Amino acid sequence: MYRFTNDYSEGAHPRILQALLDTNMEQTDGYGEDPFSQEAVELIRLKLGRSDVDIHFIPGGTQTNMIAISAFLRPHEAAISPQTGHIEVHEAGAIEATGHKVITAPGVDGKLRPEDLQEVLDFHQDEHMVKPRLVYISNATELGSIYTKGELSALSRFCREHQLLLYMDGARLGSALTADGNDLTLPDVADLVDAFYIGGTKNGALIGEALVICNEQLKEDFRFHIKQKGALLAKGRLMGIQFRELFRDNLFFELADHANQLAGKIRRALQDLGCQFLLASPANLIFPILPNRVIAELQKDYAFLIWQKVDQENSVVRLVTSWATPEAVVDQFIARLRELF
Amino acid sequence: MYRFTNDYSEGAHPRILQALLDTNMEQTDGYGEDPFSQEAVELIRLKLGRSDVDIHFIPGGTQTNMIAISAFLRPHEAAISPQTGHIEVHEAGAIEATGHKVITAPGVDGKLRPEDLQEVLDFHQDEHMVKPRLVYISNATELGSIYTKGELSALSRFCREHQLLLYMDGARLGSALTADGNDLTLPDVADLVDAFYIGGTKNGALIGEALVICNEQLKEDFRFHIKQKGALLAKGRLMGIQFRELFRDNLFFELADHANQLAGKIRRALQDLGCQFLLASPANLIFPILPNRVIAELQKDYAFLIWQKVDQENSVVRLVTSWATPEAVVDQFIARLRELF
Amino acid sequence: MYRFTNDYSEGAHPRILQALLDTNMEQTDGYGEDPFSQEAVELIRLKLGRSDVDIHFIPGGTQTNMIAISAFLRPHEAAISPQTGHIEVHEAGAIEATGHKVITAPGVDGKLRPEDLQEVLDFHQDEHMVKPRLVYISNATELGSIYTKGELSALSRFCREHQLLLYMDGARLGSALTADGNDLTLPDVADLVDAFYIGGTKNGALIGEALVICNEQLKEDFRFHIKQKGALLAKGRLMGIQFRELFRDNLFFELADHANQLAGKIRRALQDLGCQFLLASPANLIFPILPNRVIAELQKDYAFLIWQKVDQENSVVRLVTSWATPEAVVDQFIARLRELF
Amino acid sequence: MYRFTNDYSEGAHPRILQALLDTNMEQTDGYGEDPFSQEAVELIRLKLGRSDVDIHFIPGGTQTNMIAISAFLRPHEAAISPQTGHIEVHEAGAIEATGHKVITAPGVDGKLRPEDLQEVLDFHQDEHMVKPRLVYISNATELGSIYTKGELSALSRFCREHQLLLYMDGARLGSALTADGNDLTLPDVADLVDAFYIGGTKNGALIGEALVICNEQLKEDFRFHIKQKGALLAKGRLMGIQFRELFRDNLFFELADHANQLAGKIRRALQDLGCQFLLASPANLIFPILPNRVIAELQKDYAFLIWQKVDQENSVVRLVTSWATPEAVVDQFIARLRELF
Repeated sequence: MYRFTNDYSEGAHPRILQALLDTNMEQTDGYGEDPFSQEAVELIRLKLGRSDVDIHFIPGGTQTNMIAISAFLRPHEAAISPQTGHIEVHEAGAIEATGHKVITAPGVDGKLRPEDLQEVLDFHQDEHMVKPRLVYISNATELGSIYTKGELSALSRFCREHQLLLYMDGARLGSALTADGNDLTLPDVADLVDAFYIGGTKNGALIGEALVICNEQLKEDFRFHIKQKGALLAKGRLMGIQFRELFRDNLFFELADHANQLAGKIRRALQDLGCQFLLASPANLIFPILPNRVIAELQKDYAFLIWQKVDQENSVVRLVTSWATPEAVVDQFIARLRELF
Repeated sequence: MYRFTNDYSEGAHPRILQALLDTNMEQTDGYGEDPFSQEAVELIRLKLGRSDVDIHFIPGGTQTNMIAISAFLRPHEAAISPQTGHIEVHEAGAIEATGHKVITAPGVDGKLRPEDLQEVLDFHQDEHMVKPRLVYISNATELGSIYTKGELSALSRFCREHQLLLYMDGARLGSALTADGNDLTLPDVADLVDAFYIGGTKNGALIGEALVICNEQLKEDFRFHIKQKGALLAKGRLMGIQFRELFRDNLFFELADHANQLAGKIRRALQDLGCQFLLASPANLIFPILPNRVIAELQKDYAFLIWQKVDQENSVVRLVTSWATPEAVVDQFIARLRELF
Repeated sequence: MYRFTNDYSEGAHPRILQALLDTNMEQTDGYGEDPFSQEAVELIRLKLGRSDVDIHFIPGGTQTNMIAISAFLRPHEAAISPQTGHIEVHEAGAIEATGHKVITAPGVDGKLRPEDLQEVLDFHQDEHMVKPRLVYISNATELGSIYTKGELSALSRFCREHQLLLYMDGARLGSALTADGNDLTLPDVADLVDAFYIGGTKNGALIGEALVICNEQLKEDFRFHIKQKGALLAKGRLMGIQFRELFRDNLFFELADHANQLAGKIRRALQDLGCQFLLASPANLIFPILPNRVIAELQKDYAFLIWQKVDQENSVVRLVTSWATPEAVVDQFIARLRELF
Repeated sequence: MYRFTNDYSEGAHPRILQALLDTNMEQTDGYGEDPFSQEAVELIRLKLGRSDVDIHFIPGGTQTNMIAISAFLRPHEAAISPQTGHIEVHEAGAIEATGHKVITAPGVDGKLRPEDLQEVLDFHQDEHMVKPRLVYISNATELGSIYTKGELSALSRFCREHQLLLYMDGARLGSALTADGNDLTLPDVADLVDAFYIGGTKNGALIGEALVICNEQLKEDFRFHIKQKGALLAKGRLMGIQFRELFRDNLFFELADHANQLAGKIRRALQDLGCQFLLASPANLIFPILPNRVIAELQKDYAFLIWQKVDQENSVVRLVTSWATPEAVVDQFIARLRELF
């Protein structure tokens, strides 16, 4: 049984484990003030081409979203999220638990456009309603779609014109930036958003996300918020060591590229078989529409999510590849698909 | 420079890292539903002699306290903590951030007694004040003192008679249960409190605390709270693998005992030199009163906290040993002390 | 200029002011423990035919919703509201500010049906999402529609079968219970919901809503929640005196009936003129679709809300009558309408 | 039985009720946007000598404190209160329910001094603790003591030097500013603090406090906070009409002065009888130490709080006068005291 269920089914990339072993008995300060974390920050700044951003390592994605959003907003301010956004759907009300409403906009393919934001602004006019203040997007989205530079620039421009903060959930940012059709770079992202995070957990790390705060006004006292929400790990080095390894060369992008390549291979094989998709998703998640009969056969050897029913005979499934997916497994999977179609 | 600063200065015990390596490429479910975590739960239940407790792994101590306390309390209910309790002093208002007041009681040597609780209850009489509902204690305390079985039983009895929940922060529970003078066992703790946690971070793990919920009424829906506070790690196996290793034999207690033995060795050496202490602390933290001259000399080779000033000439320092402290380093430290006195 | 803008444009019914005058210099206990409030509670219980319900007076509607919902829910639980519900649209995120997500369901004419709830339950399946727990409805709704006994009974049955709490916002409950087509009574409401409030502010009082808690399990410690949210007025008598007056005979229902009668008179006149409505609303709010030309003429003498655009030529307006609306004004308004059509 | 229990035992001053009657049927906008409220704001600004302050009317004191403090603070920031402060003792955890810790300082006679604040600042040094940001004081205090201009100026200077906000709870500000020994004026208060409120409830109004925001940076979006916390009354005019009456001439100060005069009369009579006091309190609350025998006799005809036990034979009682206390009652009370001593 092989799992195409998600991109966090295994441990960490071997180089990361080796780095943990190599540094294990060095004594350091706690709470992210160790030299490994500081070096990791510098390495990421280099990739961003920005020495002025603040970078904080936080164990998980829900936690990063929650800490950032609650730190950035005043009590009456709200976040705008696409209907499919992780903060709206899959964080158990974490944002609301910090006191803030999540306003949803329908969006397209998991993405928001300026016109979606305009509608929200038009609807919220006085103090009887919350004040929309932060725009939450994810890249890649929960549906595997990505933002082009043009799309992100348009959003960014709209946000700056309307005093909205733009925040990007980058749980799968590596995948987005190495996907077919992507024309964004890490420095572009840093220029266009107020804050974003670079996901480690779904790209080869054991745990850890790197929150990047670009907007000067959002930086002050940020470590208080991390601590207050329980995310300031005593052994913060655990995250520093991992991100140092991911960014000391190109490992971070290589791992994401590997996942994308294999998702692409499956996608093309399915297209050749005449398969339709829920949407075009260039990242490491694909959503083919398969006959239920094929699904049942595949499930004997492969695990994956059934995403939604299409009709009596067909369903959308979600297939996820990762840094750890072996190409040989993908080849066997494709061979099996060909037998079943 | 050797650090007696705290018990989380290094990575993890080598057996734990080896376990991470050995399991690294196995694919599992996420969010703590992997077989490693499940096995770790069973192993801890065996040590507790209780198959009916719920056990959840949570990355850090502040987070565990915050999730447990906010899940257990209704909005108008408050926690009672000793003045020196971690939730009062060193969690950046994490409990209050979930909406609950922390009421402090002076206590003695970092510990609470029934008479402290009685005073709090006497003072809180109607709906113009919060309703005291949960008693927070730590064992070992932040001052290295421990609860005897008699003391914990008396607190437990008082709490049950007064509808108070008793919660124990066990960041250093290993140290408490292996300390000189301790007569408590893990099963005793589970019998006497409503919930507690077994600290991994300060006893050889990379991260992770094992929250044990003994009171049936506190168990329902608990995973929702973990998720909502951002602590349900995608790779929950990271904690399961570590706790499986700590509890598959006696490693957890051996590591704590090692730390205690070395703290004891330093303590006895200081006593022999005529040194006084802030308090008698049998756990792996000791608080000797040293001449400032001696402190200045020691600081050339050793790092540690200066806890408080005593008078113009003397200060209390905090010395912490851990599972990772080499005995040879302790011997050299003692030799240096003897030269300086 | 006469305002059909809302039902809180004037002060209080003269009998209520007189009651305030008559009792003014009597000294009483504060915080709702005065004899006037206690008598008001008993009078309402009589009308409900229930001596076992708890009744609390709270200054405003948003406040009542917020206190009740946050007191009834645990942190991970959410409220379900129709898309047009007051807590979703017009309370500035008050529910989220207490930590709880508001899940919306489309509903019909501002009302929820069991099938709406079923869809929400189907979507929320595990701890990665909030747990739907409380159903918020208003009666009359924000659109002037009302629940029949059959509709409310079906909702109530569904809620009890699915461990959902049913909560009714009764800001305009008087209007609902005296509307054409209503077959619910106050005792019915108390039987079918877990808690609801009887609105005073929009039915002749200066301020005040009477929260009725029917479900035994929701009663405990409720005054703590009122106090904690700042709603336990020192001069709680202010609300007791008013509700005593409203319920000492039939004044509460007479005032609501007056408002409904006049709304009905306008509605019938408009129907006679061939006017269409946004929806059929038997309560004291009506939403006729008027030519923009007519609206512009009416606005010279009357104030009211323009609710939404229909097309280039027509808009929906909202007309609200109240206990204080003089019949003569309504007659003049109708005459003017006839001139303009 | 006459009550010296508190200063909110009666309704409102007759002039206030008359104003409610006179304006009752005028139609106005809701939510404080009526002309009465606007006029009241202008009248208060005149008394303050400041046209640049923002003024909001809020139903109660706990609510005002909670809304102001939670609006002014970011999540990790805390309020400092004297040990006896209302927010610490008698608001059922309202501040903590908005997520903020209340740090207590002992103070003297219910008042804070710069050295109290310095101690708090010295103790809070990094992100493991909350960040002290707002200083809460009350004037008159809960013990009837008052701040002199020198004392308030020193506090104000300290706060400005240390980036602390200074907030004054003025539930009994009228009493403070008309007390013997007071040298503060309303304009002084507005100059020295960042925000404060002028209490109506305890000085002749039915309900209502006037929050005055002096610091420009605290003004933005404030009505959102009032709405979100449920305090934006539909009939906001209720408060506007009352404050218009209190400040259209000198009524506000005359009522407070009346209460102070009568408290002073009792105080002097007790001093003449050789009675000791818990503290010197020039406002309308006094705390004489009386023999239990005398207390028992007085309780036959008068209600008041027994504050605390002094020894086997004596207790402190709290006597409160108000705008409504008749001088004749005070004279009888004094005569009775003379009989009993």
